[in-house]
Amino acid sequence: MGLVVQKYGGSSVADAEGIKRVAKRIVDTKKGGHQVVVVVSAMGDTTDELIDLAKEVSPVASGREFDMLLTAGERISMSLLAMAIKSLGHEAQSFTGSQAGVITDSVHNKARIIDVTPGRIKSSVDDGNIAIVAGFQGVSQKRKDITTLGRGGSDTTAVALAAALDAEVCEIYTDVDGVFTADPRVVPKARKIDWISAGEMLELASSGSKVLLHRCVEYARRYQIPIHVRSSFSGLQGTWVSNEPRGNQPMEQALISGVAHDTSEAKITIVGVPDKPGEAAAIFRVVADAEINIDMVVQNVSAAATGLTDISFTLPKTDGPTAIGALEKRKGAIGFESLRYDDQIAKISLVGAGMKTNPGVTATFFEALSNAGVNIELISTSEIRISVVTREADVNEAVRVVHTAFGLDSESDEAVVYGGTGR
Amino acid sequence: MGLVVQKYGGSSVADAEGIKRVAKRIVDTKKGGHQVVVVVSAMGDTTDELIDLAKEVSPVASGREFDMLLTAGERISMSLLAMAIKSLGHEAQSFTGSQAGVITDSVHNKARIIDVTPGRIKSSVDDGNIAIVAGFQGVSQKRKDITTLGRGGSDTTAVALAAALDAEVCEIYTDVDGVFTADPRVVPKARKIDWISAGEMLELASSGSKVLLHRCVEYARRYQIPIHVRSSFSGLQGTWVSNEPRGNQPMEQALISGVAHDTSEAKITIVGVPDKPGEAAAIFRVVADAEINIDMVVQNVSAAATGLTDISFTLPKTDGPTAIGALEKRKGAIGFESLRYDDQIAKISLVGAGMKTNPGVTATFFEALSNAGVNIELISTSEIRISVVTREADVNEAVRVVHTAFGLDSESDEAVVYGGTGR
Repeated sequence: MGLVVQKYGGSSVADAEGIKRVAKRIVDTKKGGHQVVVVVSAMGDTTDELIDLAKEVSPVASGREFDMLLTAGERISMSLLAMAIKSLGHEAQSFTGSQAGVITDSVHNKARIIDVTPGRIKSSVDDGNIAIVAGFQGVSQKRKDITTLGRGGSDTTAVALAAALDAEVCEIYTDVDGVFTADPRVVPKARKIDWISAGEMLELASSGSKVLLHRCVEYARRYQIPIHVRSSFSGLQGTWVSNEPRGNQPMEQALISGVAHDTSEAKITIVGVPDKPGEAAAIFRVVADAEINIDMVVQNVSAAATGLTDISFTLPKTDGPTAIGALEKRKGAIGFESLRYDDQIAKISLVGAGMKTNPGVTATFFEALSNAGVNIELISTSEIRISVVTREADVNEAVRVVHTAFGLDSESDEAVVYGGTGR
Repeated sequence: MGLVVQKYGGSSVADAEGIKRVAKRIVDTKKGGHQVVVVVSAMGDTTDELIDLAKEVSPVASGREFDMLLTAGERISMSLLAMAIKSLGHEAQSFTGSQAGVITDSVHNKARIIDVTPGRIKSSVDDGNIAIVAGFQGVSQKRKDITTLGRGGSDTTAVALAAALDAEVCEIYTDVDGVFTADPRVVPKARKIDWISAGEMLELASSGSKVLLHRCVEYARRYQIPIHVRSSFSGLQGTWVSNEPRGNQPMEQALISGVAHDTSEAKITIVGVPDKPGEAAAIFRVVADAEINIDMVVQNVSAAATGLTDISFTLPKTDGPTAIGALEKRKGAIGFESLRYDDQIAKISLVGAGMKTNPGVTATFFEALSNAGVNIELISTSEIRISVVTREADVNEAVRVVHTAFGLDSESDEAVVYGGTGR
């Protein structure tokens, strides 16, 4: 049997009991005949506590020293986990990101992995040890400074190590049972997904599903590493994310994988834009120069009488004030009439590789919303996703009716079947 | 002006306020025209909290992983300190023991420094930065594992860096104003010592003075690094420890530097030992094999009638049970009558380079104790120290009367002067 990389998040190692429970699970995997490399996050609230301390001593907590501070969190959890494993009679060694060969660029607080040289990890597991690696951290190639990887960094560490070590699987342990067809807090009838393609998982992640971040899934897809998302509490099979169906998973591809929603975005509408070439480019250059990532964009059909049009786009709420400020400053040069800002919106996305060949999907989606009295404000699509913007107040109802309309509710074991889906 | 190494202990950086106060002091030194390298300990109780966590997950907290855990403490304090300095408008970079080039042997939890290669620190300060270095930690030469230096490790880090960087001085900041002629909690009239030779400081440290540990003073003496022990709270001049008097310090050597006491030892008396060659050797081989360091040893004059003698020695209380166990096991082979164990003792030591040439010192010492009704149980001497063992209950009174007898009390500015002291 081969090598398994397991990643445990902060909630799984929040206290001594959690660490001991995780240690036992790791030892069981080792006893099963696998080599085991574990990536661990900081315990529970440690990172937040360190951030609070930083704010007490300095108004601007960022850069090289902030990374040095935050990486103390994983140092604590990884050494405690190694001790807990040793007290179960197995050998374990913990390694910092730097020791594990996680090489990054020099962008502190959100560094990107540029190489993994896992020589020490390889030697350690070949010597019979369980290797514990600090998630979320690396060392910069040029300056040899400690860096952190930003949001989702520990998952990315795990996938990167799995790729570098040619692991059988990267298991992401979390506090839920896997990826669901919708957020179970909103849709109690949501079902756990047994297998989902990496492409669909990418769309779900960019549409508001929080179980796996886009970045880690993208890395896994590129290096063809199967991810198994599962609970560190239950021990049940979770969700497999891979390019090909795995093990006992059905070969038949589901039409719709899930319904995601996202209430973290706002909408800006630029009213009265002259309908001539170059206007939209000028607008989005302003937004891009402010380093803001926009999501959906819609331009209304121009009203022939006025020669003016409206352009709407969505962006993270946190970037709203910056974008408004940047656009107001260029109002004269661009020549629009006014700006409207709306942070009471929600995005609902339907994701499924099967929809490519099924023209009925869009109609079913819109009918379900319409029947529930939910108004659609913006629409955008990809080959395997349809997203709409609605009022934030409607979001829970909208997700539920769409989930039901596509037969995803757990009472019915059968998904709605359109012709032509399949292998 | 040259380079200054400053070391701040855990009590000086116990919270955000402390860190900001220390940052200000460091910046003031930098503004004074010095290059500054700072060695810092973990904040307040951090180390104890980490030890408690370790005990929760593992019955035996030691070895490689325990070092990995504990070194998180300095990582937190050093990065916060660097941030606090940066928020005062000065550049600072923090470095782990490994990054600072503190190379040790592979004995985890009490590693010894075998080399310091401070290239990164040198570059950092040459670039105009204040360099902050984690105390107490290093990296093992052979295995590249993180190690800790054990008790007094941060002071030793500071002195070792000062030696490697050819610093002007190693300033040890603490929560007292310097080294005193006696423990001020016992002797309210104790005076701060302005200058003391490294040799005398070594004797004080091994006699129970806790301000500087033996290990750090020994390192400083070998590499001729002047130490300045001072308060991080008051900003006053503290105590200089060096081979030669410094600056405005008097060239005349004081007769007596101070009175130290120690209640951490116990006494074992081996009763009825056959008075023949090899007996003492056999006894101390047993103790040495149990890895116990003994301090004072006294053998009574043999009683001619019986041919038996008694041997007493002192040792750390914590080693008492082990020593008793080891001796009992060899009772038959060695052939003594019985063991007596006494942990109600105290050691009082008088230290001063001036005593070498003054036979009156011993007499004055013993008379003072006798006048106070304090009984002397054991005596040992070096060239610059006399130590006696008394009852533990008598220790405070004994220290006070001896302190007064040698004119060390702060009311009298003059020490007792015997002929022949001086330059």
